[in-house]
Amino acid sequence: MKVAVIGAGPSGLTSIKGCLDEGLDPTCFESSDDIGGLWRFKEKPEPGRANIYQSLIVNSSKEMMAYSDFPPPAELPNNMHHSEVMLYLRLYSQTFKLQQRIQFQTTVVGVTQRPDFAATGQWEVETERRGGQRNTDVFDAVIVCTGHYTRPHLPLQDFPGIESFEGRYFHSWEYRSAEGLEGKRVVVIGIGNSGSDIAVEVSRVAEKVYLSTRTGAWVVGRVGPGGIPGDFVGSSRLDVMLQMLFPSWTNRKFEKMLNKALDHRLYGLGPKHRFFAQIPVVNDDLPARIISGRVQLKPNVKEFCGSRVVFVDGSSIDKVDVVVFATGYNYSFPFLPPALQAKCDYRLRLYKQVFPPVLTKPTLAIVGFIHGFGAINPMAEMQARWVTRVFKGLITLPSQQSMMKEIEKDTAMMRQSYATSERNPIQVHYTPYIDSVAELVGVRPNIPWLFLTDTRLAFKVLLGPCTPYQYRLTGPGHWAGARDAILTQWERVFQPFKTRVVPEPDSRSSSTSTIILILSSAALLCCFYYKKDLSSILSAPSFLKSPQ
Amino acid sequence: MKVAVIGAGPSGLTSIKGCLDEGLDPTCFESSDDIGGLWRFKEKPEPGRANIYQSLIVNSSKEMMAYSDFPPPAELPNNMHHSEVMLYLRLYSQTFKLQQRIQFQTTVVGVTQRPDFAATGQWEVETERRGGQRNTDVFDAVIVCTGHYTRPHLPLQDFPGIESFEGRYFHSWEYRSAEGLEGKRVVVIGIGNSGSDIAVEVSRVAEKVYLSTRTGAWVVGRVGPGGIPGDFVGSSRLDVMLQMLFPSWTNRKFEKMLNKALDHRLYGLGPKHRFFAQIPVVNDDLPARIISGRVQLKPNVKEFCGSRVVFVDGSSIDKVDVVVFATGYNYSFPFLPPALQAKCDYRLRLYKQVFPPVLTKPTLAIVGFIHGFGAINPMAEMQARWVTRVFKGLITLPSQQSMMKEIEKDTAMMRQSYATSERNPIQVHYTPYIDSVAELVGVRPNIPWLFLTDTRLAFKVLLGPCTPYQYRLTGPGHWAGARDAILTQWERVFQPFKTRVVPEPDSRSSSTSTIILILSSAALLCCFYYKKDLSSILSAPSFLKSPQ
Repeated sequence: MKVAVIGAGPSGLTSIKGCLDEGLDPTCFESSDDIGGLWRFKEKPEPGRANIYQSLIVNSSKEMMAYSDFPPPAELPNNMHHSEVMLYLRLYSQTFKLQQRIQFQTTVVGVTQRPDFAATGQWEVETERRGGQRNTDVFDAVIVCTGHYTRPHLPLQDFPGIESFEGRYFHSWEYRSAEGLEGKRVVVIGIGNSGSDIAVEVSRVAEKVYLSTRTGAWVVGRVGPGGIPGDFVGSSRLDVMLQMLFPSWTNRKFEKMLNKALDHRLYGLGPKHRFFAQIPVVNDDLPARIISGRVQLKPNVKEFCGSRVVFVDGSSIDKVDVVVFATGYNYSFPFLPPALQAKCDYRLRLYKQVFPPVLTKPTLAIVGFIHGFGAINPMAEMQARWVTRVFKGLITLPSQQSMMKEIEKDTAMMRQSYATSERNPIQVHYTPYIDSVAELVGVRPNIPWLFLTDTRLAFKVLLGPCTPYQYRLTGPGHWAGARDAILTQWERVFQPFKTRVVPEPDSRSSSTSTIILILSSAALLCCFYYKKDLSSILSAPSFLKSPQ
Repeated sequence: MKVAVIGAGPSGLTSIKGCLDEGLDPTCFESSDDIGGLWRFKEKPEPGRANIYQSLIVNSSKEMMAYSDFPPPAELPNNMHHSEVMLYLRLYSQTFKLQQRIQFQTTVVGVTQRPDFAATGQWEVETERRGGQRNTDVFDAVIVCTGHYTRPHLPLQDFPGIESFEGRYFHSWEYRSAEGLEGKRVVVIGIGNSGSDIAVEVSRVAEKVYLSTRTGAWVVGRVGPGGIPGDFVGSSRLDVMLQMLFPSWTNRKFEKMLNKALDHRLYGLGPKHRFFAQIPVVNDDLPARIISGRVQLKPNVKEFCGSRVVFVDGSSIDKVDVVVFATGYNYSFPFLPPALQAKCDYRLRLYKQVFPPVLTKPTLAIVGFIHGFGAINPMAEMQARWVTRVFKGLITLPSQQSMMKEIEKDTAMMRQSYATSERNPIQVHYTPYIDSVAELVGVRPNIPWLFLTDTRLAFKVLLGPCTPYQYRLTGPGHWAGARDAILTQWERVFQPFKTRVVPEPDSRSSSTSTIILILSSAALLCCFYYKKDLSSILSAPSFLKSPQ
């Protein structure tokens, strides 16, 4: 069975692997000359492709963004620089021999159903090689992995006066580094992850940076409590269970915790939405940039006048040199037949965000076009494992009507739980979503059974960070190393820190010092009552004297 | 009474002001052509002067580093950039007309007792103007404010092989910005505030940065809990009282709090000393740079071999391009008579770190050469207020013998409480030290009296951050605005954040949502017992099924 995979980013790679695992015959078309998709750093922005900046560090920790049968090397840092993510993707690609399945410099320009689609489910995939040579091949199935961050959204019409703005402006998609912004007055519009990263970075060289936001945001750190990866917090199965059962309570718990660390209202970040309603901003540096005044939060921009930027609260900034529009991305699948581009709310009408329900044969899937409170890799991988088994006929999709109903239910859920929009079209409950697909594949961890058969593992699965290895414990694609990968996940978290080993404190000396503490406290309390030593602290000698 | 003030940095400025307030006639000699001392940014390092880097942000918050009768403008950020510190110093200088007392471009080359010193207490101050013109003037008293960060300490002899090191090395004193370090492999030696700042900044452009430390460090943030200035935490009079009474307990409390936020052992920071034994590293960015592997902690350097750096644990780094020695500073007062340079432990033999006890007339003082857990400005200012009143004869110093005894006591205290060294010669208990000098001046706040007369203020003074305005409530130099400055200190903290005003949450809707929460929780609990909805979370349907 020949499968076309479109795009060799993280979702494309795991889709190739999914095909190979199921004995399918994948061919991946990649328009650039390397794997990695958005993770491949480009010195200059390349139109039609996702672009990242030089300093980008991944928001998810390595154990949470791992492919389920490929734990990252222990030495890699917990939050990888984009170059290290590429390294990990290359290792994955080499280990599972994915690279030989990829045709580089080949852009897919059209995907159309064959005339006999109703019988065969086949597709004609038209490609164009760099240089212009066109080709059409027939495939039994197609997996679309072209991602989300390729078409910058630049809503100039919402900003009166921008056409006569005297400074420079550009979309965050074009941003590479703060070079050239030294000593400038910069306004960044949009407090997503890009907007915040850019504001923070530019603020280190600029005269001043103003970060304008309509909605505000919740800000979390890569560094979680005690220094563990921030995405380990509240992400265990037990946590997720509580979150699903008591959404309002968990929202409040997280909001309280975050405000205790950083009063979001005081810092001008205060969002209108609840914590779980939108993917938070992951930024460890923003609070310190705000307290030092290097980044100033501002409300939405009302208009531009010459080089002045006016905000909706009436305040304005003069002599603005540069405006960065961190206003997100539009998505598009120009090569798909129009029938498959039907929308439901802001997103494509897709069953479980993967299969267009209108097809009579389920031989086309979109993989990795999804967002939730976690890394995309494990979601894309699970989708790919499901998709390939659907292609093979091992799993049957529900009727079109049932799928439509399910899509409506998803829409209702998203409307209720999340602040979706044109720019954030999809958001799912992260672990429950992966679980629901895993259930279909037959690889969802069975926790009660685990408690009966492997209690130690069961505790890790229920209470530990919900790492993707859990989906390789059982069922199709079962991996013998999964149990061990789970049991050793903390070792891989700790390993990169071991560059300066600090000995464990001596517990005996600690208990001795407790005794010393108690005795000395008692002694000091005696001083407190009987001696004048306290005078140097409490002004006791001048007690009841009137001030001079 | 003519007073020579040497140096127009923060300590020099407040010394001029102290003289003017007491009706003395100060002349300040400043070797450069501007005020500010270390806060004046120099594009290129200027020998014999303190130097700072372009990105430097002050560790103390504005309210804690204020001069006691000069609250910083409300709009200034809580942690100022060095350019804003300069702005504050200029405002101070303008407001109190200090500038006209300064002779710029004039270096003091010698300070000697006049032959009739025993009778007059007078000094001959020899100066050299830029251009070489020498002058000698007679002064009734001298205040030395030349600071601590002028002579970089580069202990090359402790690093075998450095003479044949193939890369570049320099002292942190020379560091201006990360320019030129792009893509390099950099080792920073020393985890003081400079070392950490430089490691973090360079790690944004370098290939990798290794931060080598012998001792480790406690790392605190400028951003404290809830986002309030970090130096507000544990710095109230009540906190300080507890800290003095139960040093071991407060040490442990702080260490626990810091480790809860960031496990210092895990992060390789783990210091050998207790929290209060050494001024902590103030760095908000370091943890995120470590978790992302951009900065790696390393133990002490053992030796250099070509371009390899070998550490004491046997590990090594190859192809090191640059080594930054953030190894601190030596102090020196070359212009003082040798008799005044006698040492006690690592520091100069000075009564209360100010007066050389050997002089028959107390007409020379060193101001601002002191360290504690807080900003230097308030300490220097209090010293200056004391010194000027001693000069005037309003306060008499104890006998030489008593002063010597006191100095010995200080030494014992420092040995017991602090990890002092050649590079960190002095450390005092911050508030208790200022209090003890304030007591001598007669301006120490009388808290019991305050409770009887002005309870609101008393609570602020006892429980609020111990801001310097407290020393202007009463006594000589009493300032009518002090009470108001204390009562409004939080307003000035909040003001700079008000660039995007987030409305207070509606408390009614919050209580409504509490009711909704309770009801929905109850409803969900019913589901839990009676319906299958939980199955999508708990794997209930596959309960007790064996894994496939």
